[in-house]
Formats: sequence, C-alpha cells, structure tokens
Amino acid sequence: METYSQTFLESQKNMGRLLISCPDKPGIVAAISKFLYQFGANIVESNQYSTNPEGGSFFVRIVFECPDLKMKETELEEQFQPIADQFSMQWRFTFGYEVKKTAIFVSKELHCLRELLWEWQSGDLLTDLALVISNHEDCREIVESLNIPFYYIPASKENRVEVEKKQLQLLKEYNIDLIILARYMQILTPEFVEVHPNRIINIHHSFLPAFVGARPYERAYKRGVKLIGATSHYVTNDLDEGPIIEQDIMRVDHRANIEELKKIGRSIERSVLARAVNWHLEDRIIVHENKTIVF
Amino acid sequence: METYSQTFLESQKNMGRLLISCPDKPGIVAAISKFLYQFGANIVESNQYSTNPEGGSFFVRIVFECPDLKMKETELEEQFQPIADQFSMQWRFTFGYEVKKTAIFVSKELHCLRELLWEWQSGDLLTDLALVISNHEDCREIVESLNIPFYYIPASKENRVEVEKKQLQLLKEYNIDLIILARYMQILTPEFVEVHPNRIINIHHSFLPAFVGARPYERAYKRGVKLIGATSHYVTNDLDEGPIIEQDIMRVDHRANIEELKKIGRSIERSVLARAVNWHLEDRIIVHENKTIVF
Amino acid sequence: METYSQTFLESQKNMGRLLISCPDKPGIVAAISKFLYQFGANIVESNQYSTNPEGGSFFVRIVFECPDLKMKETELEEQFQPIADQFSMQWRFTFGYEVKKTAIFVSKELHCLRELLWEWQSGDLLTDLALVISNHEDCREIVESLNIPFYYIPASKENRVEVEKKQLQLLKEYNIDLIILARYMQILTPEFVEVHPNRIINIHHSFLPAFVGARPYERAYKRGVKLIGATSHYVTNDLDEGPIIEQDIMRVDHRANIEELKKIGRSIERSVLARAVNWHLEDRIIVHENKTIVF
Amino acid sequence: METYSQTFLESQKNMGRLLISCPDKPGIVAAISKFLYQFGANIVESNQYSTNPEGGSFFVRIVFECPDLKMKETELEEQFQPIADQFSMQWRFTFGYEVKKTAIFVSKELHCLRELLWEWQSGDLLTDLALVISNHEDCREIVESLNIPFYYIPASKENRVEVEKKQLQLLKEYNIDLIILARYMQILTPEFVEVHPNRIINIHHSFLPAFVGARPYERAYKRGVKLIGATSHYVTNDLDEGPIIEQDIMRVDHRANIEELKKIGRSIERSVLARAVNWHLEDRIIVHENKTIVF
Repeated sequence: METYSQTFLESQKNMGRLLISCPDKPGIVAAISKFLYQFGANIVESNQYSTNPEGGSFFVRIVFECPDLKMKETELEEQFQPIADQFSMQWRFTFGYEVKKTAIFVSKELHCLRELLWEWQSGDLLTDLALVISNHEDCREIVESLNIPFYYIPASKENRVEVEKKQLQLLKEYNIDLIILARYMQILTPEFVEVHPNRIINIHHSFLPAFVGARPYERAYKRGVKLIGATSHYVTNDLDEGPIIEQDIMRVDHRANIEELKKIGRSIERSVLARAVNWHLEDRIIVHENKTIVF
Repeated sequence: METYSQTFLESQKNMGRLLISCPDKPGIVAAISKFLYQFGANIVESNQYSTNPEGGSFFVRIVFECPDLKMKETELEEQFQPIADQFSMQWRFTFGYEVKKTAIFVSKELHCLRELLWEWQSGDLLTDLALVISNHEDCREIVESLNIPFYYIPASKENRVEVEKKQLQLLKEYNIDLIILARYMQILTPEFVEVHPNRIINIHHSFLPAFVGARPYERAYKRGVKLIGATSHYVTNDLDEGPIIEQDIMRVDHRANIEELKKIGRSIERSVLARAVNWHLEDRIIVHENKTIVF
Repeated sequence: METYSQTFLESQKNMGRLLISCPDKPGIVAAISKFLYQFGANIVESNQYSTNPEGGSFFVRIVFECPDLKMKETELEEQFQPIADQFSMQWRFTFGYEVKKTAIFVSKELHCLRELLWEWQSGDLLTDLALVISNHEDCREIVESLNIPFYYIPASKENRVEVEKKQLQLLKEYNIDLIILARYMQILTPEFVEVHPNRIINIHHSFLPAFVGARPYERAYKRGVKLIGATSHYVTNDLDEGPIIEQDIMRVDHRANIEELKKIGRSIERSVLARAVNWHLEDRIIVHENKTIVF
Repeated sequence: METYSQTFLESQKNMGRLLISCPDKPGIVAAISKFLYQFGANIVESNQYSTNPEGGSFFVRIVFECPDLKMKETELEEQFQPIADQFSMQWRFTFGYEVKKTAIFVSKELHCLRELLWEWQSGDLLTDLALVISNHEDCREIVESLNIPFYYIPASKENRVEVEKKQLQLLKEYNIDLIILARYMQILTPEFVEVHPNRIINIHHSFLPAFVGARPYERAYKRGVKLIGATSHYVTNDLDEGPIIEQDIMRVDHRANIEELKKIGRSIERSVLARAVNWHLEDRIIVHENKTIVF
C-alpha cells in the first residue's frame, strides 16, 4: 500500500543519497565530490563526521540531484566502485524513487501501530507499508480497513521456530526492507535477527539502559523516578542492548500511578518510534560499533 | 553566613509550615483546618495527596500565617499533639523565620558548589550557609572570599572513620540541618548516614537508575545514549538507591565525546541539585517508602 | 457515544469534585472540610491556591468520596449553599458518574480530531463524544465509522449567522457541555461565544502571544524562530486572547521549511489540545481574570 | 585575560575553519574540497545546507587540519580567492589559534555576566575576555577580582552619543571582535550597531517575537502564559528584531508570581546567552536574510 502521490515520486526521480563509512584519510571528500560533479550530480545536502582526525573513522551522508538518475543507477555504482575500493569504504546509494517496503509486527498494545498508520496515511511516513503481522487479532480490523494485508500468527515460547519460519517467508515474499516491532512482545531468535542486520527497529518502553527487560513501568513506579522515557533501537541478539536510535522522556510526579505512567509512556513511545522509523527511511542512520550516527 | 535581608526575615515572622504523613482516614483535613482556624492561623497554601482512598497513606503540606507566631511556637505544637496522636501522624511544624543551617561537601569538581554559592549570594537559596568541607584545597579561595568557613579534611578509603569523626564534630558544632554532597566523591559510612536521615542530598551524574556507580559519562558514551541526565536524591546506605528528589536530561548526539558529555552534564547537575536543595529548604519534600512526594 | 466501561462508571459512582473561587478569608478550608466530613464525604485529593494572603483570591479543587452520592446530590448542594453564601463563593460540584457531553468542530486539517478520537477510543478521554460538526466533508467517513453523528454545515463569512443558528440548535439538542475547536478555521460571533463561557476550547498553532492571527507557521519561518509552539485556550471575543490553558514547544533549526514546521507543529498541537481537553473534563481548570489556574 | 592553557592553543595550531555563503551551483563542494586537499588540508568536520536546489543559496562550514597552518595563512587566502570569485562567495577563514577578543556590556542584573565569567573561568568559553563595560558599579568587584579591566560609563538617554563615543574608543583600543549585551539595559544607536554587523549578541528576556520591548515578565504574567522563554539574537537597528541565534523555554504555572517568573527566567537567559556566545566563538553561525544558520 502506498499513500504518497505520483507527483511526489516524480519529484524524487532524480534524487539520490550516498552513505559512507570508512577509515579517515585526507582526500575522501575531494574524491567523492569530484566524482559526483563529473557524473553530473549536484550535492544538495551533506553531513560529515569523523570520530578522530588521526586514525579515526569517517562518515558522510550526501543527498544529490542528477538528471536521468533512474537510467544511470548501474553506471553510477560501477563508476564509484574504484573510489570505494581506494578508501576501503562501506557504502550504499539509495534512490528517492525507490520506496522502502516495511512490515510492522505488533501484539495487543496498538498505540505505536496507530501512530505509524496515521503518519503513513497523512503521507508523512514515506514507505510502502506492505503487511502487518500480529500474534493477536486485535488490530485486524483497523489494518484491513486501510487495505493493508494482515497476518495473524499466534506465537509463544513453544512454537517460536515455526512462527519465525512463517514470518520469514512472508517477509521474503513481500520483499521487506524494514521490520518495525511496534510493541511486539515476543523475543526474536538469533537466526531471525541475523538475516536483518540493522533492519529491525524496536521500541523499548523505558529510557535505556534504565529498566532493561520486562515491566519497565512497574519498576519505574517502584523506584520513584521523576522522568519516564522510551528508547527506539536496532535489534541485536542482546536483549535491549542494540544501537540506540532515539530516546525521549516526559516529566512525572508522585501522583502518577502505574496506569498513568503507562498512559504518559504510550505518548512518548509513539513519537520516539515514529522519529526513528522516519530517520531510517530517509537513510539518515549509520551504525558504528553498536552506536548510531544520525545525520 | 546569611544573604537574605532582615526585611525578608521580618516578612516571614508569622509564616509557618505543617507537614504530615499518616494513614488515610476520614476527617483528617477537617481536624487540621479546624485546629489552625481556632488557633488563629490562616491557611495560605495547601497541597494534599493520598496514595489510595482505602487503606492508603495521606500526605499534606500546609503553609499558614499566624499573628505573633514566634511567641506561640510551643503552644502550637503542644495543642496539635492530641490531633497528631488521634490520627497516628508523623508531623512537623517549621517556621519561616528559622533559617536552616547547611553544610556543603565538595571534592575537586566545583560547578555544583559554584551554582549553590551563586544562588545563595543572589538571595535565591534561603539558608544559612554555615561551612564548606572538602578533601581538596581547590575551593578554599572562592569559599573564604565569601566569608564562609572552609575546612580541608583530606579523605581516602583508609582514614574514613577518622575523617567522618571530624566531619560529624563540625556538623554538630555548627548545628547543621542539611548536608549537600555537591560532587563529593567519597562514600559515606552507614554510621554517618544514619544520624542524618533524609538530610543528606547527593547529586548523581546520570539519569538513575541508568549508570549507577562510577564513571557514568564514560558508560553513557559507550552505550551511545541520546540523552544525558542527572539525579538528586537523599543518601541512604544503598549506593545511588536513595529516594529520588529531582531528575533532568539534555539531548546529545553522536558528535559529543566524553568531555562534551561531561560539560553538558555539568549544566544539568547544577540545576538539578539546586532545585532539590531549594525544595528541601522550603519543606516541600516528604519521603515515603524510598520515594519522594514533592509538593 | 461512550467508550468507558460500565465498570469504570460504577467505580466513580461515589466520587465528587468541588471547585471554588472566592475572596480569601480565614476559615474557608476549615468550613469546607468540616462540612464535607459531617456530610460523610472523605477528601481524596485537594489543591489550594491563594493569589495573595491579604485581600487576595482563594481557589480550591477538592476530590471526595461519599457513599450513596448519587442519591444525595441535591441535599449536598442545598446544605453547602449557606457556606457558599458566607464566603461569597463561586462554586460548583461535579460528579464522577456524570460524563460531560462534547462536540468537536473541525475543518480540513484532521490531526487534532484524530488524536481526540484515538484517546477517546482508548478510553483515555472521559467524555460522551456526542457529535462532530464540520464545514467540510473530509472527516465524515472516519467519524461515522465510529458511530458518532457527523454534521456537515458549510460555512463562510457570508452565512455565519445562519450557520451558527444551526450549530447552536444541534448543541442544544445534544445537551453539549464542551465545544472543542480542533482546527476549526472559522471565527465565531460574540453571540455564539457568549452562551458558552469558558466552555469552548481552541487550539492555536503558535506559542501565543507570538504570531496571533492567521498563518503563524509562515510567519515563524520568516522570523527564523528556533522553537515552534502551540497554545490551547478558552475562546473569548478577543481573537487568540482568551485564557491560556496549556502551551508547549518543539525545537526546530534552519533546515526546516514551512512544510516541515507545519508537520512538527501538528504533533505539538495534537498533544497540547488533548491535555487541555483532559484537564477540562477532569474539572481541573478555574478561570480567573483571563488566566487559568490548573490544579 | 585568557583562561585556556597554552597546551590547548598548541593543540589548535593547525586547525582552521572555512565559512561560505554563495548562490547554489553544481561543483562548489568539489572545488572547495579539491582545493583543500591540494593545499594539504584534511577536512575534519563539514556541514552544508542549501535553501533550495534551484536558484537557492548554498552555505557550508568546514573544519580542517593543515600542517604549519600558521605560516601559510596568507597563502591559503590568496590561493582560495579565485575559487571564491568563481562562485561569488562570501567567505572567511578563521584559525583555532586566533582567539576572539570579547567585550561584555552589563547593567545592574548580573546573572548573565556571572554565567559567562564562570564558563570562561572553567575554560569552556574560548575567548580573550578583554573588558567589561557597565553603566553601574555593581559588578566592578567581581570583574576586577578576575583581573579583567572594568569601565564604568554612566549612561542615559541624554548622553547616549557621548557614552557610545567612549565605548567605541575602548572597543577599538582593545581590538574587540565580539560585543555581548549581557542584560545591558540601554538602546544602542544605529551608528554604534552599524560598525559591528552580526558582532553584537543580545539576550532578550522573552520568547521572541512574544513580548517584544520592555518588561516582558510583567506582560507574560499578565497574559498568563504557561511557558517562559529567552532569546539571544544579533543586534540590528530594529529593536528585538535581529537574527535569532537561540531560544529556550521553561514551564511555569499559576503559582508563579512576577518575581518567580523573573527567577526562572534568569536561569533560561543564562544558558541561552552562553550557548549563543559559544556558537559565535566557534564560528558556527552564518547570517542570511535576518535568519541564522547554526551548524
């Protein structure tokens, strides 16, 4: 399902993005910008960051415009390869007209799903929302009313392998680029995570690393914290330990009971997850040593 | 040393505060307000909170004005005793004209001390700043330039008992009500803590319970968090586990190295500690089951 | 339409609220709390504020629990009248089981409507959402899908009187307590406003008093502000000058164009309006001299 | 007076910054980066922004490292001139080892001055704090105790021209790069402003454009706003209308009287001004059409 207009896609038809990580060395920017200039591409936006001038790492995100880009994709990547080799780059080009395909996983708490659906309906989430998978039936109606395919796959500790097999098949079938765990209360196996490196975004309902694991609001209540938070991160095999993409908090006071903490928390979770997903879709995130650079 | 004017103290001469915790029961507010009314005291401000209507706890903070209060202190407390007994209250009256005496403990990092001195000089911290104790000489000049007694007591793991003996003697001599650990990097013994229940305020340089213990900024950097925080809390025998009074955070991004995290953190620590101290001095805080109610 | 459960209403059946404004005088709290105690009502929560001890104004919000409250409503109000007279009070009792009836007015921008519908569906907005009125057809489908009556009344400067006549008739018919202008882009006449004093809540898409009037985002962009805000307020006859209930802001930078300011702004508008509406429904707001006290 | 160590200056001896505004055209980045590479300079950090791909403006800030930079300054600028001409650039190189000279103007409210002095003492404000000018004697002691020259120049509407003559002479004598109005409550003449384009930073004690002009806290109190703000901006001839550099706000409620609004406001003013000054000193700000781009 797509909500963005053909006009928008048309406006993106010559827009490309280039993301690079590599060891820092003199001449990288000169080499890249000379290449793009000679290829006929005009740099529209550019952000660069180095961890340390000497012996450090170099990261850049460049947005460019290039006439007839769609027809030159292969040519662009082929001609860039020698520069990438010269500087030992990890790199990727993405193209404004190639919209990423997304799957949302959800359980019974629907506020994050609703926020994503809403942003997507408003045209603010630039993705092809291909399917929703849930271990409950609660959201079928709302999902199907938007003509998005919904798959009910009951899940438990016992049938994890079988469940993931079905899920992986669907993800492959729909050609999914990004998986969003919008309060999906099941743990994924290392096998599942491994095939989607930095392509699964989770929302954890606390300010990590405070309250790692289950029932964070209950524990926040018990500890008497004065701020409630949420964290969106890429999923790795270490529970709640993946690279943090975005965090936010809200102020609470002694009057808030657990139910109210949860209610306030839902509002933070919604916006924190939506921001992280947006940044991923706009290719703003580079992962480096379990941390994120967000341009 | 006092910075507030005699005019201010004069304006407070009839102002009192009443803080109460007790099991919740019908008739408490009626009993208290009838008592105050009959005593000739007018309620100026009042905040109340109950954990749960049935079988819960009741907390109230009342600010009142009463002609000739200074002369009636004993009478007030004596006459209130029967009501306190009737409802099994923990209670205390404090008086606007009785300024609390404060001691600041500090090590080598002076930003929190500076903030407190500054607020105190501006008349915004209503306390008699009686002395500063440090295990380093760094702040002697700034403290003594304000005519505040400064005591240098070198401290280490080895001489802890002896050091605390000297400190306790000074606290007694100066008749101290509140101890502020303004980045005092020594751990206090249970014996020291025990004699000052809910009267020692510490600033921890992280958003607790994240990064309990040493070197929180280094660990925050390593974890790649997107928010940096600070927490002020009453000191108990469990390291960094005492009742939280106030917390705050600031946003950081991938560009911030450890030094910059520390710099940003200093700014949060300053304001979080100053707010907590102010609330304590204004008798706004009630501690209940390792949590704070801040009215 | 109601979304809260009968169980919830049942839990509220003995809960009442009392809101009072009056000239400050000794004995008010004693009189009220004695009255409630003798009536058999237990004070659950209480907040009080005085503008100035001498010659000022006194405000209080009390939440209480009273067995068989529903049957004693008239009795309660009758017996309280003498106290109200004695202290020249403006006062009202409200009852937890009497859910307020709400009408939403909306034009073409639907994000605030969606947020309210969502909170209402989740059971977080305790109101009987009686009808939605719009001068456009855009939201008919979403409103009617929730079984809420939708009325399309095309509006313009020319037919204002006629339009308002229809609207007033509907509001009367549905017995409406609260009108929410959820981005309703029409100006109301003094006659309309007059019959709903402090019962119309508007959301203005700027941090008032900055950018009063039309096209605030365009003007914010032009001025180069670094923060974007929204303001919810009660509607009076002075455009954007009514008592402010709630405000909030978000940080923006030079990269945000007008479209992006609007997108960020929508997110603030949603939450600011929802908070204001919630506080109104919970009887937390007292209006005094074009300002609000929010307990 | 300088507080940074010689070690720090030493570490900066090869660091340079390049700031450019120009009409957007293909090839700018390629030309700049090729030039720097061939000059032997390595780009450490780079931020770029274009208002609009077609016919818009291009802005870039580049931080670079170049061996023996101090000896090559003139050469660098001479060799860059042809590129600057080719693209019609407004440009400037600045050098890490050339510390900017700053003058602070202040009246009777000293909190902003204190914050700046403090950051400067801590080594967090990288500037040569050359002198403080005031129309009152209040801060003489604190300024002179830090061995900073203090000049008392009484000022009023009547003697404005004469006063500014003295001030301009001092600014010239001390070779001042940046003037900070740290709550200097006098209006500057167009003649004074003209000779320091985008080199005078003021702190206004409100969230501009709300409460332009005098007594903003009084007016904020009267309007009943729920957030209090401060704005730092470059001074132009239009009162409070210059390019905004930074803004921030804090939440207030009905209990805050004017004095408390001012107290809360002081805390925001301090940090907002300090951030703006820091960004200016780090050459992070480009002014474009009465707005700022802050890299």
